[in-house]
Amino acid sequence: MSSKIDQILRTVLTRAVPKDAERRRILKLSQQVIESVSSAARRFSLNTEVSLEGSVAKDTWISGEADIDVFLKVDSRLDSSVFKTMCLKVAKEALRNYKPRTRFSDHPYVEAFIGKCRVDVVPCYNVDKGMWRSATDRTPYHTQYVKQHLNQELRNEVRLLKRFMKGTGTYGAEIRTGGFSGMLCEILILHYKSLLNTLKSATEWRDGMVIDIENHYKGDIEEVRDLFDQPLIVIDPVDKARNVAAAVRHERLWEFVSASRAFLKKPSLNFFYPGGQRKISSSGIRRRIQKRETSIVGIKVSKINVPIDVFWGQIYKAERCLANLLRGKGFSVIRTCSFSDEDDLNIIILELDEKRLPKTVKQFGPPVERRIESERFLLTHLKSTDTVSGPWIEKDRWVVLKFRRYTDVEKVLKDYLSDGGRNIGIPVTISKAIKKEGYEILVNYQIGKYLYNKKFAEFMSRYLSGRPTWMNT
Amino acid sequence: MSSKIDQILRTVLTRAVPKDAERRRILKLSQQVIESVSSAARRFSLNTEVSLEGSVAKDTWISGEADIDVFLKVDSRLDSSVFKTMCLKVAKEALRNYKPRTRFSDHPYVEAFIGKCRVDVVPCYNVDKGMWRSATDRTPYHTQYVKQHLNQELRNEVRLLKRFMKGTGTYGAEIRTGGFSGMLCEILILHYKSLLNTLKSATEWRDGMVIDIENHYKGDIEEVRDLFDQPLIVIDPVDKARNVAAAVRHERLWEFVSASRAFLKKPSLNFFYPGGQRKISSSGIRRRIQKRETSIVGIKVSKINVPIDVFWGQIYKAERCLANLLRGKGFSVIRTCSFSDEDDLNIIILELDEKRLPKTVKQFGPPVERRIESERFLLTHLKSTDTVSGPWIEKDRWVVLKFRRYTDVEKVLKDYLSDGGRNIGIPVTISKAIKKEGYEILVNYQIGKYLYNKKFAEFMSRYLSGRPTWMNT
Repeated sequence: MSSKIDQILRTVLTRAVPKDAERRRILKLSQQVIESVSSAARRFSLNTEVSLEGSVAKDTWISGEADIDVFLKVDSRLDSSVFKTMCLKVAKEALRNYKPRTRFSDHPYVEAFIGKCRVDVVPCYNVDKGMWRSATDRTPYHTQYVKQHLNQELRNEVRLLKRFMKGTGTYGAEIRTGGFSGMLCEILILHYKSLLNTLKSATEWRDGMVIDIENHYKGDIEEVRDLFDQPLIVIDPVDKARNVAAAVRHERLWEFVSASRAFLKKPSLNFFYPGGQRKISSSGIRRRIQKRETSIVGIKVSKINVPIDVFWGQIYKAERCLANLLRGKGFSVIRTCSFSDEDDLNIIILELDEKRLPKTVKQFGPPVERRIESERFLLTHLKSTDTVSGPWIEKDRWVVLKFRRYTDVEKVLKDYLSDGGRNIGIPVTISKAIKKEGYEILVNYQIGKYLYNKKFAEFMSRYLSGRPTWMNT
Repeated sequence: MSSKIDQILRTVLTRAVPKDAERRRILKLSQQVIESVSSAARRFSLNTEVSLEGSVAKDTWISGEADIDVFLKVDSRLDSSVFKTMCLKVAKEALRNYKPRTRFSDHPYVEAFIGKCRVDVVPCYNVDKGMWRSATDRTPYHTQYVKQHLNQELRNEVRLLKRFMKGTGTYGAEIRTGGFSGMLCEILILHYKSLLNTLKSATEWRDGMVIDIENHYKGDIEEVRDLFDQPLIVIDPVDKARNVAAAVRHERLWEFVSASRAFLKKPSLNFFYPGGQRKISSSGIRRRIQKRETSIVGIKVSKINVPIDVFWGQIYKAERCLANLLRGKGFSVIRTCSFSDEDDLNIIILELDEKRLPKTVKQFGPPVERRIESERFLLTHLKSTDTVSGPWIEKDRWVVLKFRRYTDVEKVLKDYLSDGGRNIGIPVTISKAIKKEGYEILVNYQIGKYLYNKKFAEFMSRYLSGRPTWMNT
């Protein structure tokens, strides 16, 4: 290990490993939550086992970033409605002093903040291994597996890897990020034994990379790839039918790979703590939008009340639908993305090389060989008033020059969003919000209007640079 | 046969079949040319057989459009230089009163006009069938074959077919047209027995259609297609290694096919005699160019002194090179074509949807997986001043937003033609002309400057309509 890297890792460890005082405080808090949940369960006569799971249980949390995950393991013979009724009631009662909120992933759970510490109370079924009834039933087995296999040294390597992923924007399995989960970090360290070894290996990762630490598939990579069609495949040690890396999108995977290469080539603390990024003022961003020789179009929609993962799934889908709409009309879409402060500001960004298209477009018809289709093509275009020239024959196909229906991006968006956009596939919650609350189209400098929102300003600043933050180090 | 078609064909025949007086005049003229060539050959002691070939010999010429082809068959043991020396001398001497001009196809020949009748005196070797030494050696065998197989009725069907092809712009095997030769018309009639049957069959032609009237290949279509990679394959009855339709370009083939369908659907004399086309005034063309929502760019080059088929080959090549240049720079090229009055006005036309490009362009890099290429890509673009944004990762590839080097079509053309354009593949004769005499770039209304030339005005009028002339009937 180069002394430079060594020095950086030691600095990160100093910051990332919880000190004894924090450890005591978090464990005491966890114990209180467990007791409070147990007592509420007894009060409501819910037969359940209450356990501490997640990074606190596994001792892999990063100092100052502890989330306490308490699980309610209920009898697996109970009806699934128990999650929505009794479990929620118990969890809310237990956290009643901390403004508990119902949240939703595979099923509902309860979240609250005690001080700055997030506490999640999550129901699952108490099942034998492999007899999963809900998505969270594996978690206790995960906790158990990791606790068994990680020693103190490896736990700190997990902390280093998590911090590296947070610093490079690749951490987090929720739809918003599509990155690496905590559990995935732990398995990577179990497999590669250290952060440094993980990064070194990542530099050479190939698409469809397979890691199977429990050797469930006995090295049969082809079978694994047939089963899991994802860019990174990490077989769950407690469930051979599951890819722990299923949530990792191509972009996050390859960002992690390229960040690994960059860090090894030119090590810097910035990969772990990118705080050094210079902030750009909102007037600076305004200037850069105006100077940029492209057209940046924002579609602002109002607050949408759905669970956060559902929300991100839907806004990403809307983003894809709008991009496809514009591509279909002939616009050259350079890049798209979606911003949300997860409160009331949601803006879908579509960047085009130009907001106006040429008025004419060359349109290919069928091969002349195909008689019926050719006749239909000629009938359509010969007398049509939007035919500029032709039809003529190029090689063996009919071609015609037409006037475009749409040349202006705002006109396209207005026409297709006027009914909420269901026809182009905008998801129902966003479509409803558009119909009810309206929407706003912001072109270039008009986007400046919302830069008062700090999160949005940061987002646009990163967007305009277009580079992973670590690339500027 | 519908009475409408019947009536049209009778009208065409009345015009196309030569009357006795014309027949006598043409045959007498042919005889005179033969005698004059024979006598010149004797005078220069060239041992040769002089024969009448082509449509006059075969009696398949169209009234008023006779070309007299007289062949000089020389001893096949003579050196090939005899074509360039003795044969030319003899031919020129024979036609000395008619301003004989040397022309060139596979080898040189002599052309002259006696009144309005074109006379070609062409040398070939007197060879046994199959022992071809030059491209014209087959012609006497063709003449003989067609004379043997065509009766009076079929000869008139040939005239109908030739007239149909002339009327629809698909007649002529020279590079300029890339259409159907006279010989090909004769074989089609020998095969299909009548114009009407030829047209009916053509409506159902498929790409790679094979006609083998002498059954040289015994129905082995696959073997034929392996040998001849052309859209229409008509095996030469006197030479199984030759495709009589080799010169037919896709466009002409499919124009003939679609004209056949259109004629059978809605018969009209216009398919044979499109003279009815309304002429557009040059001011009308000017207006249409200006109103058209595209950019029409003309590149005018000066007179080029090369044989006419070489000239057309080269100007088409230059057209393709220029189109590829512009496409490579990101322009959307709608259509290209080349005009020449075969005298001193040559204009290559390139129609673009816009003459200016957006200033930015999205550029894809290598997959992140490829480490060396990725590093090179990042090195290139990270510090480059023409990088607008990025690099970022899309799916598994690097992407970057760049400023374009060229946004204006005139600038591209000027830069790449400044040295004559050899670097982009402009053929040497045209490149030399550009370097010596210069060139002119004409954008939209500037093209109007050359519309005083009637042929060019006609050409632009047809170009702007963009339709085969028969389509407007």
